[in-house]
Amino acid sequence: MSIQIHGGDIYAFDRPILDFSASIDPLGAPESVIAAARDSLENLDRYPDDKCRALTLALAQKEGGKPENILCGNGAEELIYATMQALRPRRVLIVSPTFSEYERAALSVGAQIIKYTLDEKNGFCIEEDILNYTKQADITFICDPNNPTGRLTDAGLIKKIAENADFTVIDRSFEDFANCEKINFSKNMLLIKSFTKIYAIPALRLGYAVGSGEIINRINNAKPRWSVSIPAQAAGLAALSETDFIEKSLKYINAEKEFIYKRLDELKIKYFKSDANFILFKCDIPLYDILLEKGILIRDCASFGLNGFYRTAVKRHNENEILIKALEACI
Amino acid sequence: MSIQIHGGDIYAFDRPILDFSASIDPLGAPESVIAAARDSLENLDRYPDDKCRALTLALAQKEGGKPENILCGNGAEELIYATMQALRPRRVLIVSPTFSEYERAALSVGAQIIKYTLDEKNGFCIEEDILNYTKQADITFICDPNNPTGRLTDAGLIKKIAENADFTVIDRSFEDFANCEKINFSKNMLLIKSFTKIYAIPALRLGYAVGSGEIINRINNAKPRWSVSIPAQAAGLAALSETDFIEKSLKYINAEKEFIYKRLDELKIKYFKSDANFILFKCDIPLYDILLEKGILIRDCASFGLNGFYRTAVKRHNENEILIKALEACI
Repeated sequence: MSIQIHGGDIYAFDRPILDFSASIDPLGAPESVIAAARDSLENLDRYPDDKCRALTLALAQKEGGKPENILCGNGAEELIYATMQALRPRRVLIVSPTFSEYERAALSVGAQIIKYTLDEKNGFCIEEDILNYTKQADITFICDPNNPTGRLTDAGLIKKIAENADFTVIDRSFEDFANCEKINFSKNMLLIKSFTKIYAIPALRLGYAVGSGEIINRINNAKPRWSVSIPAQAAGLAALSETDFIEKSLKYINAEKEFIYKRLDELKIKYFKSDANFILFKCDIPLYDILLEKGILIRDCASFGLNGFYRTAVKRHNENEILIKALEACI
Repeated sequence: MSIQIHGGDIYAFDRPILDFSASIDPLGAPESVIAAARDSLENLDRYPDDKCRALTLALAQKEGGKPENILCGNGAEELIYATMQALRPRRVLIVSPTFSEYERAALSVGAQIIKYTLDEKNGFCIEEDILNYTKQADITFICDPNNPTGRLTDAGLIKKIAENADFTVIDRSFEDFANCEKINFSKNMLLIKSFTKIYAIPALRLGYAVGSGEIINRINNAKPRWSVSIPAQAAGLAALSETDFIEKSLKYINAEKEFIYKRLDELKIKYFKSDANFILFKCDIPLYDILLEKGILIRDCASFGLNGFYRTAVKRHNENEILIKALEACI
C-alpha cells in the first residue's frame, strides 16, 4: 500500500477503516449544525447566496471586523488557492514540514518555493531565524498551530514576521483547539480559518478568510462566485450560535491528549506535545502498514518529509484505546 | 433597485420573491437525489473523496470515456476558473452576450478578452464568421445552448471551431434541456457540464469537465483537492441512476415553453425560441422594476449588454401563468 499524501482518504480501501489520519473534533458536529444542514436541503433548488450575507455578518461580529473583512470559501483550502491566484507571488516562504496544499497552491501559480525547515531538536518550533527568510518571499505562509507538528508559534514572533514580510498568511484552521491569543489581520496579514475541524463538518467544506477590505476584495475576484453551498452556509451559521460546544470539545480532547501522552510515555514512544487535536510521534517500526493491516489508518509523515514519524488524530476514548493497544502489540 | 448581474439572488430581498431569474428544472430534484443528499449527512465528519471515485466512474460510463477523462468540480463554475488558471490564456474569445463568468474568470488570470458579438437579426446565432476570430485567441469559450439567448450552435460549426481554434471550451450546462447531438471531447476541446440545472440542485454545487487525460490532469492541479462536498457527490451519483427523469422534465418544460410562446405571441412580445429552459424576450417597458414591485424576479439582460431584453425561466405551469398575467397587466 503506497503512503497517502493526505489524511482521511478512507475511500481508497474496500473495507472498514478506523481513521486516525484526519483530525476532526471527536465529539462530532453539534446537533444544531446537523439539523441546520438537514433543513437546508429543503432549498436544494435554490442557488446559494453568493455573498454569504448572513454568515459573513455573523463572522464579522465574531472576529470583530466588518463584513468587508470576511470572505467565506469552499473550505479553507479554496481560500488558500484563491489567495495565491489573487496575489500571484513569485516566491512563497513555506515552513517544512507543513500542510502540503500551500506548496501545491503556490506551484499552481508558478511560484518558487522557499523553505524554512523546522528542527526536531527544538520540538519543531518556528524561531526568530525565520526572519532571515521572510524578506526573500512575496508571501509567507504560517500554519498556526502547525500541521503535522501541532505547535503554535509564539504570538510575538508572528507579529515580527508580519512586520518583516511583504505579506503573511496565517492559517488558523486548528486555532480553536489551541489555547492561543487572538491574532488580528492587518493590511499585509490575512488569516484563514476553518469550520471543518472544530465543528466536525469536513463533508460540507467551509472556511473563511479575515483580512483588509482591499485584499478580501482581490481574493473574492479570483474565486468562483457560488462556491459555498447552502448546507455549508446553514451549518456554519448554526455553529456560530453554539455557546459551549468548543469548550466541551476542548475539555474532552485535552483529557484524551493526556491519556495518549501517558500511554505513549509508557510505551517509550517519543511524541511532541500538541496545541491541536492531533499528535506527532516517532517510531522506528513501519507502523503505517502494520496498523493498516489491523484496519487502523494513521498518517505516515514520510509524505511531509518526516521519515519514521506518524500523526494521529485525538479521537473518542474507546477509539484512542484501540490505537494504543494496537501500538502496544506492535512494539 | 439596481439590476442584478446574476439570476437567483433572492437573498437581496427581505420579502418573498417568485424567482424567474434562475433557470432550474421546475420539477425540482428527483426524490432519489434528495434522499441521497439527506442520507449523506450521516457522514458529516468525513472528508469527501477528493478523487470523487464513484461519481467519476459513473460519469465516465455515461460520457463514454475513462475516469481520467472526467473531473468533478464544485459547480461547473469552479471548472471554468480552474481551466483558466491551468491554461493561463493570454487572449480569450468570448461570445457576447453570454454567461458573464467566462469573462470574469479570464480577467482573473489577466487575459485579454476578444468578443464575438451576436446579432439579433439572425436570432443571436453563432455563425461561420466566428472562425475569423478563433485564431486570435488561445481559448474560445462557447456556451451551448447559449445563455441568455437559449440558442444551440450548429454541431458542424462547433466541429469547425474546434478544428480552427487553439483550444475550445464548450459549456454544455444546459445541454440536457436541448434536443442536441452529443459532442465528444478532443485533445484541444474540453466540455463542461452541470448537474445543477437539470437535476435542480444548485444549492449543492456540482459540475464536471470531460477532456483529454492530459488537460484534465492540468485542470485538476489548478483546483483545490476536496472541493466537491459529500452531499454533492451523493446527489450526483443518485441523479445518474435516474432513468426517465430527464425525459419527464423535458416533456414538461417543452409544453410550458409552447404555452409561454403562445401567450407572448398574443401579447405581441417578441421572444427568441429557446433550446434551453429559459426564454429571452424583448420589451420596451422597464419590466424588471415593474415585476419586482409585484414580487416577481426576472433577469434584466441589460447586464448582458442587451438593453430592453429580459430572460425568464420556464417554471411550473401555475407560476408561468402568474408571470404571463403580470406581463399582461403591464402592457
